[in-house]
Amino acid sequence: MTDLIQIKKINERVLEVSLNRPEKLNALTKPMWKKLGSIFKDLKKNKTLRCVVLRGKGGKSFSPGNDIGEFAKTRSNSKLAKEYGVHLHGTLAAIQECPIPTVALIEGLCVGGGLEIAACCDLRICGNSSRFGVPIKRLGLTMAPRELQALLQLVGRSVTMEILLEGRIFNSEEAYAKGIVNRVVPDHDVEKETYQTVERICDGAPLVARWHKQFADELLAKKKISNKLNNLGYKCYDTKDFQIGYKSFLTKTKPNFKNK
Amino acid sequence: MTDLIQIKKINERVLEVSLNRPEKLNALTKPMWKKLGSIFKDLKKNKTLRCVVLRGKGGKSFSPGNDIGEFAKTRSNSKLAKEYGVHLHGTLAAIQECPIPTVALIEGLCVGGGLEIAACCDLRICGNSSRFGVPIKRLGLTMAPRELQALLQLVGRSVTMEILLEGRIFNSEEAYAKGIVNRVVPDHDVEKETYQTVERICDGAPLVARWHKQFADELLAKKKISNKLNNLGYKCYDTKDFQIGYKSFLTKTKPNFKNK
Amino acid sequence: MTDLIQIKKINERVLEVSLNRPEKLNALTKPMWKKLGSIFKDLKKNKTLRCVVLRGKGGKSFSPGNDIGEFAKTRSNSKLAKEYGVHLHGTLAAIQECPIPTVALIEGLCVGGGLEIAACCDLRICGNSSRFGVPIKRLGLTMAPRELQALLQLVGRSVTMEILLEGRIFNSEEAYAKGIVNRVVPDHDVEKETYQTVERICDGAPLVARWHKQFADELLAKKKISNKLNNLGYKCYDTKDFQIGYKSFLTKTKPNFKNK
Repeated sequence: MTDLIQIKKINERVLEVSLNRPEKLNALTKPMWKKLGSIFKDLKKNKTLRCVVLRGKGGKSFSPGNDIGEFAKTRSNSKLAKEYGVHLHGTLAAIQECPIPTVALIEGLCVGGGLEIAACCDLRICGNSSRFGVPIKRLGLTMAPRELQALLQLVGRSVTMEILLEGRIFNSEEAYAKGIVNRVVPDHDVEKETYQTVERICDGAPLVARWHKQFADELLAKKKISNKLNNLGYKCYDTKDFQIGYKSFLTKTKPNFKNK
Repeated sequence: MTDLIQIKKINERVLEVSLNRPEKLNALTKPMWKKLGSIFKDLKKNKTLRCVVLRGKGGKSFSPGNDIGEFAKTRSNSKLAKEYGVHLHGTLAAIQECPIPTVALIEGLCVGGGLEIAACCDLRICGNSSRFGVPIKRLGLTMAPRELQALLQLVGRSVTMEILLEGRIFNSEEAYAKGIVNRVVPDHDVEKETYQTVERICDGAPLVARWHKQFADELLAKKKISNKLNNLGYKCYDTKDFQIGYKSFLTKTKPNFKNK
Repeated sequence: MTDLIQIKKINERVLEVSLNRPEKLNALTKPMWKKLGSIFKDLKKNKTLRCVVLRGKGGKSFSPGNDIGEFAKTRSNSKLAKEYGVHLHGTLAAIQECPIPTVALIEGLCVGGGLEIAACCDLRICGNSSRFGVPIKRLGLTMAPRELQALLQLVGRSVTMEILLEGRIFNSEEAYAKGIVNRVVPDHDVEKETYQTVERICDGAPLVARWHKQFADELLAKKKISNKLNNLGYKCYDTKDFQIGYKSFLTKTKPNFKNK
């Protein structure tokens, strides 16, 4: 049996995590949420990776969201839904809390739970023909507060309400205008553009990337900058990688960072 | 005497509330603020409506803001202004706190207090020739903090400062780029597009729409998700409307939600 | 020796503050940060100015950020960096806390610390060929939390992460779409457009402009509107300038505000 979530080491620096159920456009099931969550929980301890790419297998769809067919068994009342929700929310949290930069490579549909996963990544790059939306109102279901929070942080109240109340599916141009994706490229370039972006991320000092994520998340969680956070802002000056970066700048060479 | 705020039941699901002083482009007076507020306070108790449309009568203007002519009597010093402000702010709060989805149908001018009212709705749809702005600096007056808050939530600090410090009137294209409106359509299509949007909203499960509004507002008011809010996220699974939505999805029919 | 930060009184109402090291594209040094900070700290007490313009001398660059050449002496470890940081952060805070409206006039490069300074102004106007970015990851350095905070407030998490993780330099069109600048004009019009904007700001009641800044900042710092802030919202009605503005409105003349 093939893994419903596939992980592939692209090289020493980059891991690709794929939703792997292409025959169902990568519709998400409870085991997939669990597996995805456990992968990202493990990544928390990883000290060497510099970037994680999240994508859907098959080239036609990132994910259309949760597999509705599964609901009768796994999500047909609030008790079951809560059990399901614990995994779903835990997984979204694990993606958001991943200390390694994350990029969603979006081909085709990015809807419902698929959009939630993408919203929890640091960057989102999609193709021209990609489509977005959250048509959950048609099912009589809410997006849970924990899920809504990620969307709200990404696009604000006005766009969040438009997406949820109308439930429209919209195209990549509108997604870009709404701030959902960082970049739209021709469909055949999504993979290339994403991996060039990954390359740019990997070229940077890896501790710096992790610190920047940490700073942003702490600043969004609290209004005030703690002394501890403030001091963390100077740690980089004592790293080996700053010496490397600084010398490479003066000598106009490419820095070869050591992650320390 | 005609009502300065007109309410019209479009059908069992939709209420249209109109600023009705077209001979003055729907400039707002104290009695209008009071009436508008009392209508929206009543709507808080309404359990059956699925959408409220807010518009200006006459097709040429949503509203140019407060009627300055009235100021000598009603707003000429801080004491009077405070009394006026209580109504104005109470009305904005009542619109924001309306549990039913609200859509601003914007034709023509949407300026000052008019823009504040629109900013308190969930969605904003306007025509090509619509114009926006807050030229209050010319009057020597501030937008009160309670009013400024709605604008700040909609467009952030940078655009809010641009609008207030410059006091420019700008067109619909700029309003869209600034995130003030969700959609711009040709002038003759504003009504049609708005009511198609209303239809999409009404097609969804009504409790879900109300919950989504509640979730967003609680998430914006607090940083943390309370247990109570978290549990509310599973309530939908125990509704009749989820059963209806789920079956309609499997049978590929249109769900006929019952609001329970 | 010429001043590295030049101040020039344009007229009774407007002060222009220039980063003045055009031979280095206005790259920032520790003395420049200190001087810039002390100028803005002094401006806190100024009661008469109505607008401050911040720009870079030479017409080719706002600023490319900190002068890396200087780092060996002033910023080569966390202890030195902290000392440097106190000035840098104090200066950014002084610009943000300036009670007078501030406009960044951006020609050419606006990168790193240059972009941080611009982000702390109220408005940003740039030319077509301007370029933006924060390529600090290449140096092995983080943007400190205090600096990151200003960027985060301006453009949100998604764009902030894109800028910091990728470290790309991008053009004015992208900067506008990302919400970094309020307006892009042809290069030869940047000065003209900025000073027309300054004129519009100066035409408004000056106390009103200061109050609007204060309201926005307090609202962003706290979730709730205090009674004190609420009452401040009515102060304008007791000003002389409201009487002037009101009369000028009724007589359709241009108000000549007195700043009281």
